Parts: sequence; structure tokens; C-alpha cells
Amino acid sequence: MPTYKLTIEYDGTRFHGWQYQPELRTVQGELQKALKVFLKQDLVLYAAGRTDTGVHALGQVASFRCEQELDLLLTQRSLNGILKHDAVVKRIEIVPDDFHARFSAVARQYFYVLSRTPVAVGRHYAFFCKFPLDFERMQRACPPLIGEHDFRAFCEAGTEDPHFLSRVDLALWEDQGERWIFRIRANRFLRSMVRIIVGTMIDIGRGRMEPEAMAEILAGRERRHAGFTAPPVGLFLEKVFYE
Amino acid sequence: MPTYKLTIEYDGTRFHGWQYQPELRTVQGELQKALKVFLKQDLVLYAAGRTDTGVHALGQVASFRCEQELDLLLTQRSLNGILKHDAVVKRIEIVPDDFHARFSAVARQYFYVLSRTPVAVGRHYAFFCKFPLDFERMQRACPPLIGEHDFRAFCEAGTEDPHFLSRVDLALWEDQGERWIFRIRANRFLRSMVRIIVGTMIDIGRGRMEPEAMAEILAGRERRHAGFTAPPVGLFLEKVFYE
Repeated sequence: MPTYKLTIEYDGTRFHGWQYQPELRTVQGELQKALKVFLKQDLVLYAAGRTDTGVHALGQVASFRCEQELDLLLTQRSLNGILKHDAVVKRIEIVPDDFHARFSAVARQYFYVLSRTPVAVGRHYAFFCKFPLDFERMQRACPPLIGEHDFRAFCEAGTEDPHFLSRVDLALWEDQGERWIFRIRANRFLRSMVRIIVGTMIDIGRGRMEPEAMAEILAGRERRHAGFTAPPVGLFLEKVFYE
Repeated sequence: MPTYKLTIEYDGTRFHGWQYQPELRTVQGELQKALKVFLKQDLVLYAAGRTDTGVHALGQVASFRCEQELDLLLTQRSLNGILKHDAVVKRIEIVPDDFHARFSAVARQYFYVLSRTPVAVGRHYAFFCKFPLDFERMQRACPPLIGEHDFRAFCEAGTEDPHFLSRVDLALWEDQGERWIFRIRANRFLRSMVRIIVGTMIDIGRGRMEPEAMAEILAGRERRHAGFTAPPVGLFLEKVFYE
């Protein structure tokens, strides 16, 4: 029974996130529906990262198993024909039997787009923050994130994760002029983790907190000490890494 | 009476083009409405390029005259507050009395985004062309466009332009991997000129015409010899040049 790996791009604006929910339009729901139309059978898709409502993905990865030997290119074209335009299968591959989009992934990479000017073209893909921000302060808040830490302070309350450990090996702001991009890679992400980190960075950039606060917040493990949750509009799941 | 220059960005998706039309949502109409709310008077805005329905702009320029001495930053913020999110005033400047957004412009620059893969994120800002295309053939079709020519063959029928001359000084395809960008700069553009040029280039890239046909079509001055009109979704007015 072959295992298939899908690489998926989606515009999260009109999705209630990745995860299947009856009555709501989700990426998993739409994809499973399209697979059912094409394969004439019910399947369950597993994703590398369960993105929240409004969060985008350029390289989400999902896997499923199915008895049929599929023509990869025709399957891709057919799924893209069935799907609405805001989700696209970029690639389908056959992978070894023990592959699992979620459990085989060794790292996920996200980026967050902060617009420094009001934006019309691409307004669904960036968060315009109207406050003056100090780039250098925000950059200085990055290094404390690197390494393995308990990220409880940067996790949405009410999460049922068994633990809050995450090993971050990339955390960097890039100044592209009108857009500032924050990129972060880790072995696992907690609920809203990137958005709370970005919100805290914005508070640091505005001068409401010092860059040094980042390490203290991390050590304190209290959500209320971190900043606001930045809106989903600027967040992208960029890439998932496998061995 | 001061003259004001506005630099405007807009997402053309939900606009019936630039030009004011009663009953239809146009960029000029929305901007004039916002100016009226703020200035309490009726004004006419002149634009450097009257973009068609669905065409985007990153750097459209418009000018108007008005008796009031305006606080530029507050005027910009107020207009952006009044406007819907798909149009944004990027800058307001006071310019010399003889400035006219349209007649003072010495060149306009457009680019067209062709996506080589189906696209979900940014699908309103690129045209996905599913046919195999040869980049090198399309690049070879560019040089004949450079210089001053009669572009009647690349002009929508029914246009009331007094003449069809245009002096092109940049015409180039750029391969960015998943996106191919065609950039063109000229002193003036005819109705749908960029889109018909891109459509013809796509026909050349598909092998339906030879790159050498470009010069012949130009010389023949017959719209029916050129290719199809590429859809507006990929077209951007990038920049307007003044002395």
C-alpha cells in the first residue's frame, strides 16, 4: 500500500485553518473532499503543521496511504482542478512506507511578514503595523530564542500539548525595506507560538519592552508576560524538513 | 493654488479600472470620493496611466490642484482611513504649479507576472499559464520592441488614440524560477498594449509563432496578426518617471 506525500500551498484567508472541522471550510476538509471525488474512497490526511485560521502555507506537507497506484501528475492536476483556487497541490511523490508527514518531520520553518507601510497589493499576506519600530531592537531579541527551551510563555493558553519544549535553530529578522521578515525554524511549534513571539518582538520594537526581556519571558514561562498575538495574516508555513 | 502629487498603490481585482465611471467602482472614483470627504470640495484627479479593469498598480501617480494648504501626512492618513483596503496612498507631495501627472510624465513602467506553477498565495497577482513555454524564445522576441514604433498591432481595436506611436526603451523577461516577469518601459502605452504584447510572447513561447514574428507583426500594424490579450491579473503599473 503506497504512501503519498503532498506538498501544498494555500492562502489561509478563507480557511478555518488546516484541521478538519464539520461545517467549517478547512484545508484538510477541502483536500480530503477532493481526494474522495478522485479516488472514490475516504482517506485521512496527516499534515506536518496544523496551521490556524488565516495562516498561509507555501510548503505544507501532508501524507496519506491508499491501495491505488496513482499516476502522480494526473492526480495532482485532477486535485487542482477540483480544489478552489486558494489551495494548490504543488507536488505529489511516492515515499517509503514509514513516512508520516507529521512524525517524520525534523523541522518546520515559518516566516512572518510585517509591512512598514500601508499595503494594498498583497494586503492579505502581510501585517501592517502603524507604530514606529526599531529594527535593531527586534533583531537583538532573536538570539535568546535559539536552542531548546520551554516555550510555555509563547503558547496560547488552553493548549493540551504534553510538553512545551521546542528546539529553535533559526530566528532572524530580515530588512527588505517596506517589508520586514521574521523567519524561524524549530523541531516543533506550539499553538500560536510564532504569532506570540512576533507580537512580543513588536512590543520590543515599539519600546514597550527591552530586548533583554525576551530571555526573561522565556525563563518565566508565563503567557501574560509575553506580548500580544500578532494577527495570522502575516504568517506563512514556509517549509517542512525531513531526514 | 498648490498642486499635489499622489503616489498610489492598488489591487485592481475589485476595481473597474482607474477611470471614473458613474455607478461603477473605479480607483479615480473612490479617491475623488475620499478627497471630497476630507476637503469638502469636488476635485478632479489626473493619473499618469489609466489602467484597465483588474490591472494593479504599485506606483500610479495622480495630481490635483486645490486652494487649501494641506498637512501632507495627515491628509495621507485620513485618505487611507477613508479608502477601502485595496487602494492606498503611499505618498503626497507638493509639486511645482506646472506639474501634471499625465502630461509631465516622461515614461511609464509596467511589469507582467507569469506563474509557471499553479499558485494559491498571490493568485490575484499572477497569471498561471499551463502550457509549456520556452523562456529563451520569449526573451528573443523582446529586442524588436525597443525603439519608436507604430504599435497599432498591439492596441485594442476601437481605441480613439490620435496616433499609435510609442517609444519603448526597456523590454525584458526575467526568470525568477516559479515566476517569469516581463518588464516594459515606454513614453506612452496604448490600450491593452502590454497585455497584447505578453499574449503574443506566450504564443511565441508555446511555439505557435516564431520569435522573428514579433518584428513582422509590428511592421504589419494589424491587431489580428498579434496574439491574444493576456488577462489583467498579472499586470502592474510599477512606476512613472518625471523629469
